[in-house]
Amino acid sequence: MTLDDLDTPTLVIDEVVARQNLERMAARAKARGFALRPHTKTHKTPYWARAQAALGSSGLTVAKLGEADVMVAAGFLDLLIAYPIIGPQKQRHLARLIQAGLRPTVSLDSREAADSLEQVGQMTDSVIGVLVEVDSGFHRCGLPPGPAVADLARYVESLPHLRWDGLMVFGGHMSRERDPVVLRRLVHEEDEVVGTLVATLRSSDLSPRIVSTGGTPQAACMDEIQHATELRPGTYIYNDVATVRSGAAAWEDCAATVLATVVSRPDPRWAVVDAGSKALSSDGHPDGGHGAIVGRPDLVVTRLSEEHGILEERAGGQVDLAIGERIRIVPNHVCTAVAQHDAAWLIGADGALTVLPIAGRGRVR
Amino acid sequence: MTLDDLDTPTLVIDEVVARQNLERMAARAKARGFALRPHTKTHKTPYWARAQAALGSSGLTVAKLGEADVMVAAGFLDLLIAYPIIGPQKQRHLARLIQAGLRPTVSLDSREAADSLEQVGQMTDSVIGVLVEVDSGFHRCGLPPGPAVADLARYVESLPHLRWDGLMVFGGHMSRERDPVVLRRLVHEEDEVVGTLVATLRSSDLSPRIVSTGGTPQAACMDEIQHATELRPGTYIYNDVATVRSGAAAWEDCAATVLATVVSRPDPRWAVVDAGSKALSSDGHPDGGHGAIVGRPDLVVTRLSEEHGILEERAGGQVDLAIGERIRIVPNHVCTAVAQHDAAWLIGADGALTVLPIAGRGRVR
Repeated sequence: MTLDDLDTPTLVIDEVVARQNLERMAARAKARGFALRPHTKTHKTPYWARAQAALGSSGLTVAKLGEADVMVAAGFLDLLIAYPIIGPQKQRHLARLIQAGLRPTVSLDSREAADSLEQVGQMTDSVIGVLVEVDSGFHRCGLPPGPAVADLARYVESLPHLRWDGLMVFGGHMSRERDPVVLRRLVHEEDEVVGTLVATLRSSDLSPRIVSTGGTPQAACMDEIQHATELRPGTYIYNDVATVRSGAAAWEDCAATVLATVVSRPDPRWAVVDAGSKALSSDGHPDGGHGAIVGRPDLVVTRLSEEHGILEERAGGQVDLAIGERIRIVPNHVCTAVAQHDAAWLIGADGALTVLPIAGRGRVR
Repeated sequence: MTLDDLDTPTLVIDEVVARQNLERMAARAKARGFALRPHTKTHKTPYWARAQAALGSSGLTVAKLGEADVMVAAGFLDLLIAYPIIGPQKQRHLARLIQAGLRPTVSLDSREAADSLEQVGQMTDSVIGVLVEVDSGFHRCGLPPGPAVADLARYVESLPHLRWDGLMVFGGHMSRERDPVVLRRLVHEEDEVVGTLVATLRSSDLSPRIVSTGGTPQAACMDEIQHATELRPGTYIYNDVATVRSGAAAWEDCAATVLATVVSRPDPRWAVVDAGSKALSSDGHPDGGHGAIVGRPDLVVTRLSEEHGILEERAGGQVDLAIGERIRIVPNHVCTAVAQHDAAWLIGADGALTVLPIAGRGRVR
């Protein structure tokens, strides 16, 4: 069976490229002394989690407890849950996972979330590790890097079923950076902020054992990082338009593409393919377009609807694709593209195709 | 069980509102003499397809054959497949469905697609109905409304296993219109274009039996439509920000919301909820924002990442939501939001909650 035999649109993963990406990151992190705790939100599969573990990852990261379910069922018990546990449903869910063997670390940024997690510790008679989340400029979750961090760390330490392990930052604003020089500067600046904060905490007898920083662009710039101890990249396994545009990867490092077929040519100026937002997700990119067409830098996916992608020639000329022709599209944001698919096709080193179930898809809770 | 018992984020459907939406559209279409062939891409469930059939729909519309699988398995055999059938995998797939009892009508806009469909007719020894798709301004699929339409209709008629049934238009550009007056004018203009085309075809002895027009905004303006015979709205069952902003529905007609919990309050100016693009999809709206918060017009979802939504006060002031508080968000585009969920909760007239599996989710092929 070859790619020509596959129905479209379908997600295709180049196993050789993905493994190279994993190996390169693992080697660099090891050489620089960083713990590597990959975020599984990109691949969402125990298959790749095992490959990451075999390469020496210190554990895994998940965002939601439903993602933890998948990884715990596959035997991964050292997980950072990078999300505050709020509400009785999530408290009971985490308690069940702990009873199943999970040894979680949880990030949080409020006393309310600490109190909630303390109750889970009580319910399970366990001590749960905590990273206090710090806002390094993304302005999503995270306390500003000031006295509130020490206050919350001390509060966590005061609770009998919690253990303050350190800090977590996620500079998500760097994900769409398009200038590699600016990216390096932003990573350096985040590290400076973290370094100042850690020094302040140490002077108050608060020594973080873990300082965890997220993101593939950040991990790609790990030479700029002095004060973090742990990297949590996710996208690096597959890469996408955003990581390439940021300078964190090259096009040949993009392992995941959506295979699509030209289904309509109503006008010389555009072609319609059968991959829309249900195959690629709607996530945009500041450069415009909805993905990069492999081998065809002259073409742009100018519009998506749910089941259609519109391809135009970059300079506004005629498009030379025929009905029935197939293309491969590198998604703008591979995590959200993968999240649309129940399964992908894995192309092995020998060209053989095997099904890769995306077991963590749809785990929104 | 009440909404308070549900884990979040979760998709919640108000059954009373959805049924009212179905009944109102069915009654209006019947009074005006339109066939109603709802697009199932919004609800993706046999449950609602049965309700639409009970209200007299003339059949259903699907975009992809995988969606047809779900509806054929539930006993719906009169389907418009509003998508050209290109490639041997899709030919075999459609042939299997015909052998299972499907009586398809298929839209197409090229001789290549007609030849492909003719082969399916040969494979199954059946005659397949065809609508020639015409571009009414969306510039996706569809021939320009000129002589090429008659040429393709004649070509379809020349093929022994195809039957030319008429025309299909989809004015998708109207979905995001924000001025009800402009919307009515656009619907009227599309109808004029269709009317001129039909008159030209008739003068060439080509009489379309079906003239099918799509879209909830168009169906809402059916009083402007003289020349179409069939309406294919989808979104009208649930409605969303886009249909409300277009004037096609009111906020109280929005049946689908994403229930979310406030998980972080790191700054007085924003709150973070646990619904991100994995619960709402990334589809934007020209008015900005990522959905409307029920009962809180003063708040805006300014940003989404996969698992987080950022809520801000419209005037830039402080947000008054506490950690643990719950909100309900009307999605910008309910079809893509529904497409993220394996199941929804249906709130019945008595307030009881039942699970509604979204059987057609993920049917991208």
